Amino acid sequence: MAPALDGEDRLLRWLRRRLDRPLIGDDAAVLPATGPFAVTVDSQIAGVHFVPGLDVAVLAERLLAVNLSDLAAMGAIPSYAFLALTAAPDFDHRRFFRALLAACARHRLRLAGGDLSRSPAAGAAGATGAAGSVASPAPIGSPASAGVLAATLTLIGRRRPGSRWLRRGGAAPGHRLWLGGTAGESAAGRLLIGAGARLAAGRVALPAGWAGWEKRRRLAAAARRAVRRHLLPQPQLALGQWLARQPAAAAIDVSDGVGRDLHRLCGESGVGARVEPDQLPLAAGFTALCVALGVTPVELALGGGEDYVLLFTLPEDVVPPTRFGCRAIGRITASRRVSLITGGALCDLPAIGWDHLTRG
Amino acid sequence: MAPALDGEDRLLRWLRRRLDRPLIGDDAAVLPATGPFAVTVDSQIAGVHFVPGLDVAVLAERLLAVNLSDLAAMGAIPSYAFLALTAAPDFDHRRFFRALLAACARHRLRLAGGDLSRSPAAGAAGATGAAGSVASPAPIGSPASAGVLAATLTLIGRRRPGSRWLRRGGAAPGHRLWLGGTAGESAAGRLLIGAGARLAAGRVALPAGWAGWEKRRRLAAAARRAVRRHLLPQPQLALGQWLARQPAAAAIDVSDGVGRDLHRLCGESGVGARVEPDQLPLAAGFTALCVALGVTPVELALGGGEDYVLLFTLPEDVVPPTRFGCRAIGRITASRRVSLITGGALCDLPAIGWDHLTRG
Repeated sequence: MAPALDGEDRLLRWLRRRLDRPLIGDDAAVLPATGPFAVTVDSQIAGVHFVPGLDVAVLAERLLAVNLSDLAAMGAIPSYAFLALTAAPDFDHRRFFRALLAACARHRLRLAGGDLSRSPAAGAAGATGAAGSVASPAPIGSPASAGVLAATLTLIGRRRPGSRWLRRGGAAPGHRLWLGGTAGESAAGRLLIGAGARLAAGRVALPAGWAGWEKRRRLAAAARRAVRRHLLPQPQLALGQWLARQPAAAAIDVSDGVGRDLHRLCGESGVGARVEPDQLPLAAGFTALCVALGVTPVELALGGGEDYVLLFTLPEDVVPPTRFGCRAIGRITASRRVSLITGGALCDLPAIGWDHLTRG
Repeated sequence: MAPALDGEDRLLRWLRRRLDRPLIGDDAAVLPATGPFAVTVDSQIAGVHFVPGLDVAVLAERLLAVNLSDLAAMGAIPSYAFLALTAAPDFDHRRFFRALLAACARHRLRLAGGDLSRSPAAGAAGATGAAGSVASPAPIGSPASAGVLAATLTLIGRRRPGSRWLRRGGAAPGHRLWLGGTAGESAAGRLLIGAGARLAAGRVALPAGWAGWEKRRRLAAAARRAVRRHLLPQPQLALGQWLARQPAAAAIDVSDGVGRDLHRLCGESGVGARVEPDQLPLAAGFTALCVALGVTPVELALGGGEDYVLLFTLPEDVVPPTRFGCRAIGRITASRRVSLITGGALCDLPAIGWDHLTRG
C-alpha cells in the first residue's frame, strides 16, 4: 500500500494532472533544442516588488508578465517556464497555479519544472532545528524568514524562423527612438498602492482617505487604471516579434525607467540620444493624476519605471504599424550624450529610475 | 559625459569584467542549441534553507552545489547558470559573486544572466511608497520584507555524446539499489547549526554550551564534518555522468531524505524496493554523534535529507567503480511496496523526510 502523500507530493500530483505532457517528475526538465534559445529570470518578492497581501492570482499574472516583457524585448516567442516558489503554509498554491497556468496557456507557454519550499508562517516565533524531532526535521526557521513570499520565474524563448534576436546593441545615429506605450502610469499606480490602494476580486479600491476622489469621476478612473496597469502589465510580445523581423532595430523593455533604460540601450550601442519630453506618450488623465499625487508628470514618465513597454530604435523610414500604438520620442545621435530637448535647449537626461541596489 | 552609475549598473560592469565572453547586457541571454538540454531551478532563502548570517561565500557555493546535484541526477554536464538574487543593502555582492564565479569555473559553468533586487535593510521600519520622492521611487517596503535574502539559481545542462539522460523512471525489478555516499550526516549538521554551530572563516565553531565535546576529540571532529557537509555538499556529477553511460540505470538525488526520495523513484518507475538498513553507509563517528544529539541514526539516515548523494538502480551485474564510494543498500521489486528488512521481517518504509510544504 502506498503511504499517504504529504503536501508537496500531493500538490505536484494535482499540478501534473493539469499539464498536458508533464515534464515535472525528474530532477530536471529535458527540453528539445530546435535552435538557439533565450533565457531570462525575474523575481517577485512580497514587500520588495509588491505589497504583502496581494491576491495570489494577480501575483502569478504579474510574475509571468514581467518576465514575458524581457522576452518581448528580445523579439522571442515564449516556450517554457520554470518556477521557484517559497511561501508560508497558508499560501493558496492552487489559486496561484490556476492563474499561472491560465496565463501560460494564453501565451502558449509550458510550465516545465521548478522548486517549491515553505517559509515559516508570518508571526511564527521561528522553529530552531531542535534535536529530537528528526523524523520531521524542522526547517531552519527564524523570525527574519517568517511569512517570506518569493517567486522566481525562468523563461525560455525561441526565435521565429526568419527573425533576428532583438538586442540592445543595434541603435545607430539617425535612427528614431520609439516608445511602445505610455510611461509613468505604472509608477503612479505604485504610489497609490503605497498609499493604500488595493486590487481585490477584480476591483480597485482607492486609499481610504481619498474618498473625495470618487466625486471626480475621471480622476478616480485614471487612478484605478494606474493601479491595474502597475499590477497587471501587458508585455509587448507582438511588437517585439515584429521588430525582430525588421533589418535594423534595437530594443530594451522599460523596467527601471525610460531614463535609466535609455542609458543602457545607448551604452550597449555606443551612441547617445535626444529625447523630446513633449512627445512622451501619457495615459488618459495621467497629468491630473500626477497633480493630485503631488508629483511632476515628466519626472514620473522618465524615472518611474515598471512600465513594461518597449523602448526601441528604427531607421527613419521604418514606422511600426499603428496597431501597436507606438510613439516616436526622439532620435539616436553619434555623440554619446543622452539629453532632453526642452524649450529648444539641450540638458542632460540623467539615468534616473529604479536602481535595484541603492535606491529606496 | 556619461552620468555617474549607480550601484546596480556599477556592479554589473564589475561582473562583466569577470566573465570571459559576457552574455549579460540584453534582456535575456541567447544560448546556442547543441542538442536537447536539461533545466533545473533551486532556491536558497535565509531562514528557510539556511540560518541568517551565513558567510555569503558559503551561501554562493551551497546554492550552486544544491543545483548541480539535480544535474548530477540527470547525468548532465553543467553549461549555464542564471541567478536571481534579492538582498539587503549591506549584502556583500562582490564576495558572493567571487565565490559563485570561482565555483562556476571549477565546474566549467558560465554565469549567463540573472536579476538583482534589493530588500529593505533588516530592522528597517519599512518605506511606504510615499508620493513626493518620485525620482527615486521607493520599493514597496514593509517589515515583512526587511532583510530578506533570497537566491534562486537556474542551471542548464547538456548531455555528453553517447550518453542517455538519467531518469527516475528506469528502475526495474531485480535491479540493485545503490546509494552514492553516506546518509544522515547533513541532517546532523543541520541539527548542530540549529543549536548554534557556525562555519566562519573556514572553521566550524560548535555550539557554545557544548564545550565538553572538545574533550572528546573524535566526537567534535564528527560534528565539525557534519556541519561542513550540511553547508557545502558535494554534488556527484562524475557518478551521474558514469550512470548515464550505462544501458539501464535510474537515479534521483537525495534532497528530501532517502525514504521520501526512494518513494519518488519507485513511483516514477512503477516498482517497489526492499532496503537493508544495516547496509546504509554512515559517516565516520556518525553513530556516536547521533547518540550525543539524542537522535536515532537510522531515522536520521532515512529521513534527514539534504544528503545530495545519488540514490540509483543498476542491473545486478553492473557495479559502479569503487572510486565513487557507492554502497548497495537494497533491491527493486515488482511489488510496489517500499519496505525495510529488519531482523528478517519486512516493515513499510514510510515516505519520511523533508516535505517542503507541510513539515517544520
